[in-house]
Amino acid sequence: MEREHNYMPERIRWKRKLFRIIFKADTKLGKLFDIFLLVLILLSTFIVMMESVRIFDAKLHKVFVIVEVIITIFFTVEYALRIITIKNKKDYIFSFFGIIDFLAILPFYLSLFIPITKYFLIIRMLRMLRIFRILNLMDFMNDGYFIVTALKNSSRKIYIFLLFLMIFSVIVGSMMFMVEGDREGFESIPQSVYWAVVTVTTVGYGDVSPGTPLGKFLSVLLMLAGYSIIAVPTGIVTAEMRNKRQELGKSCSRCGNNDIDDDARFCKICGEKVV
Amino acid sequence: MEREHNYMPERIRWKRKLFRIIFKADTKLGKLFDIFLLVLILLSTFIVMMESVRIFDAKLHKVFVIVEVIITIFFTVEYALRIITIKNKKDYIFSFFGIIDFLAILPFYLSLFIPITKYFLIIRMLRMLRIFRILNLMDFMNDGYFIVTALKNSSRKIYIFLLFLMIFSVIVGSMMFMVEGDREGFESIPQSVYWAVVTVTTVGYGDVSPGTPLGKFLSVLLMLAGYSIIAVPTGIVTAEMRNKRQELGKSCSRCGNNDIDDDARFCKICGEKVV
Amino acid sequence: MEREHNYMPERIRWKRKLFRIIFKADTKLGKLFDIFLLVLILLSTFIVMMESVRIFDAKLHKVFVIVEVIITIFFTVEYALRIITIKNKKDYIFSFFGIIDFLAILPFYLSLFIPITKYFLIIRMLRMLRIFRILNLMDFMNDGYFIVTALKNSSRKIYIFLLFLMIFSVIVGSMMFMVEGDREGFESIPQSVYWAVVTVTTVGYGDVSPGTPLGKFLSVLLMLAGYSIIAVPTGIVTAEMRNKRQELGKSCSRCGNNDIDDDARFCKICGEKVV
Amino acid sequence: MEREHNYMPERIRWKRKLFRIIFKADTKLGKLFDIFLLVLILLSTFIVMMESVRIFDAKLHKVFVIVEVIITIFFTVEYALRIITIKNKKDYIFSFFGIIDFLAILPFYLSLFIPITKYFLIIRMLRMLRIFRILNLMDFMNDGYFIVTALKNSSRKIYIFLLFLMIFSVIVGSMMFMVEGDREGFESIPQSVYWAVVTVTTVGYGDVSPGTPLGKFLSVLLMLAGYSIIAVPTGIVTAEMRNKRQELGKSCSRCGNNDIDDDARFCKICGEKVV
Repeated sequence: MEREHNYMPERIRWKRKLFRIIFKADTKLGKLFDIFLLVLILLSTFIVMMESVRIFDAKLHKVFVIVEVIITIFFTVEYALRIITIKNKKDYIFSFFGIIDFLAILPFYLSLFIPITKYFLIIRMLRMLRIFRILNLMDFMNDGYFIVTALKNSSRKIYIFLLFLMIFSVIVGSMMFMVEGDREGFESIPQSVYWAVVTVTTVGYGDVSPGTPLGKFLSVLLMLAGYSIIAVPTGIVTAEMRNKRQELGKSCSRCGNNDIDDDARFCKICGEKVV
Repeated sequence: MEREHNYMPERIRWKRKLFRIIFKADTKLGKLFDIFLLVLILLSTFIVMMESVRIFDAKLHKVFVIVEVIITIFFTVEYALRIITIKNKKDYIFSFFGIIDFLAILPFYLSLFIPITKYFLIIRMLRMLRIFRILNLMDFMNDGYFIVTALKNSSRKIYIFLLFLMIFSVIVGSMMFMVEGDREGFESIPQSVYWAVVTVTTVGYGDVSPGTPLGKFLSVLLMLAGYSIIAVPTGIVTAEMRNKRQELGKSCSRCGNNDIDDDARFCKICGEKVV
Repeated sequence: MEREHNYMPERIRWKRKLFRIIFKADTKLGKLFDIFLLVLILLSTFIVMMESVRIFDAKLHKVFVIVEVIITIFFTVEYALRIITIKNKKDYIFSFFGIIDFLAILPFYLSLFIPITKYFLIIRMLRMLRIFRILNLMDFMNDGYFIVTALKNSSRKIYIFLLFLMIFSVIVGSMMFMVEGDREGFESIPQSVYWAVVTVTTVGYGDVSPGTPLGKFLSVLLMLAGYSIIAVPTGIVTAEMRNKRQELGKSCSRCGNNDIDDDARFCKICGEKVV
Repeated sequence: MEREHNYMPERIRWKRKLFRIIFKADTKLGKLFDIFLLVLILLSTFIVMMESVRIFDAKLHKVFVIVEVIITIFFTVEYALRIITIKNKKDYIFSFFGIIDFLAILPFYLSLFIPITKYFLIIRMLRMLRIFRILNLMDFMNDGYFIVTALKNSSRKIYIFLLFLMIFSVIVGSMMFMVEGDREGFESIPQSVYWAVVTVTTVGYGDVSPGTPLGKFLSVLLMLAGYSIIAVPTGIVTAEMRNKRQELGKSCSRCGNNDIDDDARFCKICGEKVV
């Protein structure tokens, strides 16, 4: 191995070294690079946020612009190096993080032509999800993976639930439009549907609220419905999580099946006794 | 079979063909018909919503009316054909979807006499529930059925819970009426009960809120109560869902364990092979 | 038995008959009496509510007063008969329903001296809880009992949770008072605590809301906390319900133990196999 | 034992006696001392709260100050005695309650120089957590421990969930800033993020609410998201609690089943006698 390494042309050795620093976090330099990246992401997000505050922007506009240019140049170079050093370029470019890395620099160049797009830079925050890898926190990664998996597995049920909820909201909203049509905030069905969703999800801004007794009565029914059916997504995710829990727990000594429930005494795949 | 078919009078053959297109989705034409129906439902819902927005209605009133007339004629013809082609006419007419199909066209004809009833057309949205059959999505249907069943099985418990909640809200509302009677929003017991429900369900519009220290103290108790008892419907539905999961599945022939996963080949409790 | 009955003095036979009508619902007259009672309770509640609405009271004050007098006289007579016909008078008078029955008539007589106490009549609604017995709905009674038991068993944990929540709200409220002291709604610590509870329970009236950036930042933390810890009462009640479920399910054929879990194969009390 | 005791110098015997009164609650004096302490804590909290109300402070400022001085002197002496009488001084001083005891007196002395810090006295409320020990309520302590443990064990998952939620809120907030930038309450990204958190947690103050149709549409999506993902922390804590229930309990010596109820005498899975 060592030998082969020595025979490698200088260019390839460099590429390998860079790849390890940029993509992995198992060397000192790689870790430092990742932490530096994290700081830059936070700094960049912070600056975009501050830039949107008029009084800060008035005073510090130039500083903001300079820092942003520097960070974006760094991110651009990093993105280029990622593409250069990785073998399977296509896989990276169209992977979740590859797309995020690209979207993290795109708005800056776009904003040279269309200024408002600058704020899309906030999408850089998604790069923070790399944080899990950076600090090599296996437990955190498992937990994050646990949440995402539970949500993904419940998603079909939740979509159907939301479809039911939307149909329900549109119908209730239309009824309220007929009942409270003259009142501000219920002038049209879309407006009333907006109110219905605000109510059924128990958000309750209060920018729109019923005025007539009949309207209030309907609202009360809607609130009670919302208060009751909030149980549905909760039930779905809870049941899913109870199931998923095990996946990260024990595994069968014979067949390696790692979906062992807490109360299992035999592996459900091969029938082996669970230790 | 083939023969018998050939002997059928032309009229009956046509009826069978139409029945299959309209009611089933297992032929190409049947699928196309269903998708076309879905588009019409969405378009119709969209137009009713837009028509309720004054500025759109002012500009496009004629277009809206024409499209609505066309869609309603189509729906009427479709409804007639459904009744003609099906054998068991009574069963269809009084089934859930039969009633929906009827209610989807009724408001239009009613609105010729009483204009406001036009907005009941929004009930057409319920026809969207056919979407599950249209795309032949068995998994989606199962999930929808799962949610509906869990809610249906929990419904008696939830009704009792809502009865408790209503009695509680009326009593708390009356107390608040005595405490805050002079303040706007608490002028009568029904008004105060409305406020109590808004609070206990954690909606909290803020159109009515307590003014006196004692009133605020009572509100705090009510909020804490609402925050705690939201657990009740959630607990009911979650327990029900966990149960449904098991009921829908297999059970072990030896030990009767009914928590058998879909991919299980052996009972996790006694090690028996799952048939 | 029959004989003994015949020898009973007329007075006692009447008492027995009345007792059965008033307290039980297993005879036709008893059922009718209970339904009549339920109607009166609803009517009385409705009238007290309507009386609090100024415009209705202005028009119909006399009608309201007359109906109320009649209903209260009926309830008073009924209360007297209940005491007369029952054997164990003390047990009834100090039972839950005995106290409710008394409180249902007290406010009327009190209101002759102190008018405002009239609205306490709303407590009559609690008599509606008899509804379960009236309609002899065993299943409904079981479900109501199920909810009450689950809440009772969880109550100690929920009280402790609420104690934590109160301490937390007082501390957060005090911090907000120091941060936003000059803003309306945060002028004193009790006011700020009120705001903190409104926020942490996700009610969010909006009658008080933070104004300074630091205040908004603290609010965001508080909301996220409230959003997360709502899981605690839910978790408590759900776990309790899952446990309680069984109590109404199977029971052991040998020892009669009726606390059989869904996945139990042996009775946990006597070790008998569960069928 | 008795003898050894007699030979102890007077000073040490006093120290032992005091230690038992102050730190324990197993003697009559110890119990009285604890209850007295609890009353003082409540009184002190109450006075700090009342002092913050302008009208009360105007009238009773002197009384408040005097009572506060007396209570603080008592707490200071108590704190000194605690340090003197305990053997392992370091352990106490840096323990949770040691720090609370110190923070309970610090703000008073600080407030002699910086008046506003007086309100930090509210931290004294945390001393109330001793209430569990005071009344020697083992069951309550277990339940409190149960809640704290369940939250602690779920905390890592909940932190990750909140991290996801924050990233999500920042991105949604930025989008709303671009959509509704001209409207009051959306003038900057931090403001819009504040709104996004208010919405996604279903608090919904209504101090900021969307004005444009597109803004309302985005809000509706955000609310539905918030309504759905509230299931995540609930699912996490519920699963954890169900587990804790089992962990705190016994397990079967034959089959390892760890779902053994408190009153179980036989394992419900294998029928083995529970030891």
